[in-house]
Amino acid sequence: MNIDLLLGQLRKQSGLDDADCAVFASKLRPAKFKRRESLLQQGQVSRDAAFVLSGCMRAYSLDDNGFEHVLQFAPPGWWITDMYSWISKKESNLCIEAIKDAQVALLSRDDQLELFDRIPKLERYFRILAENALVSTRTRLMENMSLTAKQRYHIFLKTYPNLGNDIPQKLIASYIGVTPEFLSKIRGEK
Amino acid sequence: MNIDLLLGQLRKQSGLDDADCAVFASKLRPAKFKRRESLLQQGQVSRDAAFVLSGCMRAYSLDDNGFEHVLQFAPPGWWITDMYSWISKKESNLCIEAIKDAQVALLSRDDQLELFDRIPKLERYFRILAENALVSTRTRLMENMSLTAKQRYHIFLKTYPNLGNDIPQKLIASYIGVTPEFLSKIRGEK
Repeated sequence: MNIDLLLGQLRKQSGLDDADCAVFASKLRPAKFKRRESLLQQGQVSRDAAFVLSGCMRAYSLDDNGFEHVLQFAPPGWWITDMYSWISKKESNLCIEAIKDAQVALLSRDDQLELFDRIPKLERYFRILAENALVSTRTRLMENMSLTAKQRYHIFLKTYPNLGNDIPQKLIASYIGVTPEFLSKIRGEK
Repeated sequence: MNIDLLLGQLRKQSGLDDADCAVFASKLRPAKFKRRESLLQQGQVSRDAAFVLSGCMRAYSLDDNGFEHVLQFAPPGWWITDMYSWISKKESNLCIEAIKDAQVALLSRDDQLELFDRIPKLERYFRILAENALVSTRTRLMENMSLTAKQRYHIFLKTYPNLGNDIPQKLIASYIGVTPEFLSKIRGEK
């Protein structure tokens, strides 16, 4: 498993040195997922957060009518987990699966908390990560309440600049909250 | 300013001792807001996060059509800020104002970051706070995409058990994303 992408982030954003990186790396477990293979299913307890090294994952929920709602895509360089289940050890409300064959590095919550006591800079890295994820999620919540589907589609393209033509359109529709037919109409407009 | 409510949280959740609490308290600044008075207006840079000691604040955005969308209410015991503006020092997209006369303790981002170096347990407190806020906001985002307005209203009542009859109904309507007339209809149903 080549985790340079992750260690690069840790060195650059939080100043971890080689010794810290080695301790952190020793807690990571490699995993591979074929397209449509699940890391987590609704109702399971999430043991691991995943850092995507290659491919692409997504987190989504299934509503009572069987409709999927995409919370997040995770291309290389992104973390993905059901944060609620991961920190509470309660049953997950989300499914997480690969949408392209993916390689990931897994980290359990227990290992993460133990590492925070050994490497305070790692707690800082994850504190900043949580703050940034909070800003993004709040922004998206407000956008969903106040912007049109077309505006939300253009924000999707900015958030995930490499995914627009790379993943099934029905997943993008499910992320911005419209039918695939409506997304097709938006894409057709100049 | 009586900040026992805040120091109680810090002692209980993060094990801060009296000396740490005194250092933290020395960075807090008291402020009072009359109903409808603003802590932050859209377009300003957010200097301070506010911990609500009494009364109630709210954060909301105004869309291009003049409609308000409530991101958050903050009754006593809650923090409130435009996280995006507070951490980036860029212009805010949110307004924050009192909906009932409020007393708050203000903390600047610069002071917070300086305190993290002096009191690692404080960084832990705010890391956990950011994680929990992320879980709540993600949950609300998924609920907005998949639940009915009536279901969202009942979740509002659980999230803010003391606010249902205590604040203007139009603000609750704006939080769950319906018109006041539609909320009135929901409340009338058994």
